[in-house]
Amino acid sequence: MSETVNIAILGASGYTGAELVRLLVRHPRARIVALTADRRAGQPMEAVFPHLGGLGLPTMVTIAEVDWSGVDVCFCALPHGTTQEVIAGLPQHVKVVDLSADFRLFDPEAYAQWYGHAHMATDLQKSVAYGLTEIHREKVKAARVVANPGCYPTASQLPLIPLLEQGLVQAEDIIIDAKSGVSGAGRSAKESNLFTEVTEGIHPYGVASHRHSPEIEQGLGWATGKDVVVNFTPHLMPMSRGILSSIYVKLVGETTAEDLHAALVKRYAGEPFVRVLPFGTAPQTRFVRGSNFCLIGVFKDRVPGRAILFGAIDNLVKGASGQAIQNMNVMLGFPEDMGLEQQPLFP
Amino acid sequence: MSETVNIAILGASGYTGAELVRLLVRHPRARIVALTADRRAGQPMEAVFPHLGGLGLPTMVTIAEVDWSGVDVCFCALPHGTTQEVIAGLPQHVKVVDLSADFRLFDPEAYAQWYGHAHMATDLQKSVAYGLTEIHREKVKAARVVANPGCYPTASQLPLIPLLEQGLVQAEDIIIDAKSGVSGAGRSAKESNLFTEVTEGIHPYGVASHRHSPEIEQGLGWATGKDVVVNFTPHLMPMSRGILSSIYVKLVGETTAEDLHAALVKRYAGEPFVRVLPFGTAPQTRFVRGSNFCLIGVFKDRVPGRAILFGAIDNLVKGASGQAIQNMNVMLGFPEDMGLEQQPLFP
Amino acid sequence: MSETVNIAILGASGYTGAELVRLLVRHPRARIVALTADRRAGQPMEAVFPHLGGLGLPTMVTIAEVDWSGVDVCFCALPHGTTQEVIAGLPQHVKVVDLSADFRLFDPEAYAQWYGHAHMATDLQKSVAYGLTEIHREKVKAARVVANPGCYPTASQLPLIPLLEQGLVQAEDIIIDAKSGVSGAGRSAKESNLFTEVTEGIHPYGVASHRHSPEIEQGLGWATGKDVVVNFTPHLMPMSRGILSSIYVKLVGETTAEDLHAALVKRYAGEPFVRVLPFGTAPQTRFVRGSNFCLIGVFKDRVPGRAILFGAIDNLVKGASGQAIQNMNVMLGFPEDMGLEQQPLFP
Amino acid sequence: MSETVNIAILGASGYTGAELVRLLVRHPRARIVALTADRRAGQPMEAVFPHLGGLGLPTMVTIAEVDWSGVDVCFCALPHGTTQEVIAGLPQHVKVVDLSADFRLFDPEAYAQWYGHAHMATDLQKSVAYGLTEIHREKVKAARVVANPGCYPTASQLPLIPLLEQGLVQAEDIIIDAKSGVSGAGRSAKESNLFTEVTEGIHPYGVASHRHSPEIEQGLGWATGKDVVVNFTPHLMPMSRGILSSIYVKLVGETTAEDLHAALVKRYAGEPFVRVLPFGTAPQTRFVRGSNFCLIGVFKDRVPGRAILFGAIDNLVKGASGQAIQNMNVMLGFPEDMGLEQQPLFP
Repeated sequence: MSETVNIAILGASGYTGAELVRLLVRHPRARIVALTADRRAGQPMEAVFPHLGGLGLPTMVTIAEVDWSGVDVCFCALPHGTTQEVIAGLPQHVKVVDLSADFRLFDPEAYAQWYGHAHMATDLQKSVAYGLTEIHREKVKAARVVANPGCYPTASQLPLIPLLEQGLVQAEDIIIDAKSGVSGAGRSAKESNLFTEVTEGIHPYGVASHRHSPEIEQGLGWATGKDVVVNFTPHLMPMSRGILSSIYVKLVGETTAEDLHAALVKRYAGEPFVRVLPFGTAPQTRFVRGSNFCLIGVFKDRVPGRAILFGAIDNLVKGASGQAIQNMNVMLGFPEDMGLEQQPLFP
Repeated sequence: MSETVNIAILGASGYTGAELVRLLVRHPRARIVALTADRRAGQPMEAVFPHLGGLGLPTMVTIAEVDWSGVDVCFCALPHGTTQEVIAGLPQHVKVVDLSADFRLFDPEAYAQWYGHAHMATDLQKSVAYGLTEIHREKVKAARVVANPGCYPTASQLPLIPLLEQGLVQAEDIIIDAKSGVSGAGRSAKESNLFTEVTEGIHPYGVASHRHSPEIEQGLGWATGKDVVVNFTPHLMPMSRGILSSIYVKLVGETTAEDLHAALVKRYAGEPFVRVLPFGTAPQTRFVRGSNFCLIGVFKDRVPGRAILFGAIDNLVKGASGQAIQNMNVMLGFPEDMGLEQQPLFP
Repeated sequence: MSETVNIAILGASGYTGAELVRLLVRHPRARIVALTADRRAGQPMEAVFPHLGGLGLPTMVTIAEVDWSGVDVCFCALPHGTTQEVIAGLPQHVKVVDLSADFRLFDPEAYAQWYGHAHMATDLQKSVAYGLTEIHREKVKAARVVANPGCYPTASQLPLIPLLEQGLVQAEDIIIDAKSGVSGAGRSAKESNLFTEVTEGIHPYGVASHRHSPEIEQGLGWATGKDVVVNFTPHLMPMSRGILSSIYVKLVGETTAEDLHAALVKRYAGEPFVRVLPFGTAPQTRFVRGSNFCLIGVFKDRVPGRAILFGAIDNLVKGASGQAIQNMNVMLGFPEDMGLEQQPLFP
Repeated sequence: MSETVNIAILGASGYTGAELVRLLVRHPRARIVALTADRRAGQPMEAVFPHLGGLGLPTMVTIAEVDWSGVDVCFCALPHGTTQEVIAGLPQHVKVVDLSADFRLFDPEAYAQWYGHAHMATDLQKSVAYGLTEIHREKVKAARVVANPGCYPTASQLPLIPLLEQGLVQAEDIIIDAKSGVSGAGRSAKESNLFTEVTEGIHPYGVASHRHSPEIEQGLGWATGKDVVVNFTPHLMPMSRGILSSIYVKLVGETTAEDLHAALVKRYAGEPFVRVLPFGTAPQTRFVRGSNFCLIGVFKDRVPGRAILFGAIDNLVKGASGQAIQNMNVMLGFPEDMGLEQQPLFP
């Protein structure tokens, strides 16, 4: 791999595309050579995102116009469902990090059930790595195509997986009450995401039917070696960025909440982006804003035999574009935090 | 009782005091004759709350200055802990609705444990009614002193109590994940409630230690006839008004989520302020803003044997001043919704 | 006019339509008999606005389905441009308050210039009253059709007109820097009004080209008897409701800022909805939220010969639906504040 | 100057202190060796700002405890009024960038008038440079002590000074209507800055009496060579970061708004942080969030002989800590944008 890698971003006109650009322009070994946005083809990036002006970025083009011979890495930030065929058609020398949901479910039947149509690249699916970096680093290292995890699944799996792997919490009784900012819904114009509809309020949505449920259950299933079904209840709240997962678990046997904390501290020691807070300290989404960090908190519950976990991330960074770059770094053998060193923006 | 009742509001310079004024000035049978605010004594209400000008309100005075002979009803919106002695010292002809927590816990030991000092009016406590109106209406009707419920306990008990009374959900495994606006913290200047500290973020607080836990457990205990311990986890989020309680329950025997819904619909039929939404419909806090409504939603869970309940209120209205007026109406034999007919303010 | 008037609301599925409903259901002499929303015809109001459930409202229908024989008053909250023909076609016994901009510009040439097409009901226009109630009350009283003012024009004209009428400020050098909440843009789904695009920021829009400019200039021209051109610069900011107009004026001759204040106090004495604050007191939009009040503040400027005026309203109430009901009250000889007595909602 | 400079930050527990840390930890030639916070002495930075954990920062100490022998540059982020004596007492080898207002007014009489007491370091004042970098770069380069400009003065002077220097706009008739986020008020607990008091509203404050007025007038006076008095009207609005200055000016002679634009484009060509947008394009504060950029927009007014200017910055970056680092870079001969290359955070 040469000093600098050439990067294409497919779907640059959405929030995750813009976030990739924001982070990659400061990555010392990345060079953005192609940006695509079918409906905005021919326009400069700053016509769509004025905060990304003056950066010498290439003009946006259609996917068909990309010259893949000069591309080393492709970030695919296309809408869910449109991605399978695009990625299946890319030349083999291009490494891919896919931010859509298209390759996240490894069971074609689960995919068909949740997305309403058969998967269109089941062969490719077999070689994909699931890019929850701290958990699946070795697979990511070896993969050509990485399925970047969803935002909710990232904030929910990181606290849970080490505990399930070690048999410290029960897999049968997990409740995940998650709160998300609005950027997770993307930039498309919908009445339900208008300022006037979102500000000064909160409500659950996708109750017992959100497509991130099977992704979470798949990851927890891998950790336990058996099928897992969880309660996952997302809520929409008035903030742009941030996800907080409040996770209610039952302890196994004599395990204590302090044991959970110790296990997580040990598991994530040395990880650059996962910070297990002191026992009984509450994570706040504002303290990860704009950064690739995941904060984890562990509390004793008043109900005997129970404990409470919290996971906080910026949904656009660790929940999307930041983790995608982290995965690229792993795939290319770069230092894992390269280009991701910026601190959170607070206040 | 004469045509019009004369009302004193103790602690008029806080948010619940202001909300009492906002609502009572439109109550056809209420006349505000005294407003107290020890540190603002001598000032007009609009010096503290400019939105309440031009209403012909009495100037604020100290509690000692109130002439109780002309007062029929006293709303006490003083800080927790200062209230017991004040109320114990009021003349017997004055009916009292206390918005503080001072008379909410009926077990003196529980009070001492959670508030760090012995209760100072244990005799009076015995005659107090707990003013969760829809549940304890008959006791409220007969009481001279009503302990108005806390905001979280209101949003949490209304969905749960009918189900526990009928044995439809298990009392041992209740998880209440609650989200509150900032007005619940009052108007006192604290760094943690600054705009810059709250906007664009969410975090849990008082985890497993919030003083509304024993109040909720007391109410659920009354409903089941045995001690109940619940997980209650409050979160602070960027909105002024509103509480959403997301409640995760286990079903008893063959009970279904639809059964829960049917039981709640039946229990609250005819109630002017509790609206059980169609099965599978999510309440939103913005749709109760400024009103005395409590919206309840019921959902099937993907996890077998589980269901999800939601309760949404405006914490300053149904969670405080509105319910206080509702209780006054019950105590005085007025129509229960008198002065509380305004619709929610949206957007 | 009988005890109760029957009311039709055209365009009930927008924010101003919903606000009309919120206010009219508490108006003691109004009964809503028809609600129209072409694309939502057949649905109940609460399918569109869940906060307006349980009110016994009529199902929404198309305009063509309305039986006008039973309608006394029609509020027209249709999009700009579609209204002229609808109103021109209504039976003569129906009084009309039009909340669109279609009849606000009395000069057909000005209309054509700003709206890009010839006015389609120029005859009807001649008999319309411009419903800035405090200024044009007598004309409103006599009119069958009232053009309800725009939100910006209301907040801008009320402080200025008395001063221009009396020749206290110069008409040639008026600068209006206005800040609006997002509900002014309506409920249609636009990228620019998404929560993520609006929160935590501010920007000007429609600079020197906003269609409320000619409406303001028309009103100020009437007050001075000559043509007036003003600087009007609107800004979009992250709040749902509220407009603040900051108005920079030059004093005539020896006039002082205190003189302006005295003139406004005198002019608006006895007005139920216009409150001139003490000299040097700043209005805040949050202190009018949900109410029909207009707060006016007057300040001395450090620059000699200059003064500063502020006008604050809730754009959906005094800037739209509240003023519309105020105009209906005037047209029907009801007390002007009937149904509009509720206090602002703060916090 | 050695490869790395050692830096002390006085007043690290405020927002500008935290922002200095956020930026300096990524500055390749800066090393933070001392952080002071008198009331938090002995605590780690992350006890005060959890988002700044894991950075190996020194524990906070009192000012008296700092060992100045190892310090090259001191950023002083102390409250206004306390700073003069502290800076006067620092050893001469320490270069200073002062973020307070203490050295911004170069006329001792103006200082005494606006701050209510005599300046305590008038000798030192004479050698201070006013650090509006783009305008006073040469003086900054030569100075030991730089007075870092206020946030409002930065956003207001950058659009105006080139135009006044060239005589394109009149100095007698400048109106600056400015809108600020809440972080400008700092982190101290005040009722007026509570979330509940700020959200969903806007209001003017400090009208004709804000202490940034004389600082703006001083800068404009330097540009014109005569005394200037301006209208400066700040507003507080619900966002954490950002200032927008909307500036209304009169053109000199035949000058057009397009001429103003051309002059600004020319003046700021090559500046890394000042971006003059295309004529008639509106700056938005959200497009500078977290960055050191200043966006400038120029519009034609409908009123003949007038034009409109807009300046947008992040008040904590270009309006405080970012410009302070920019000034340090100039003082030390570093590339001016070193450590300030991050792009804005949007959404």
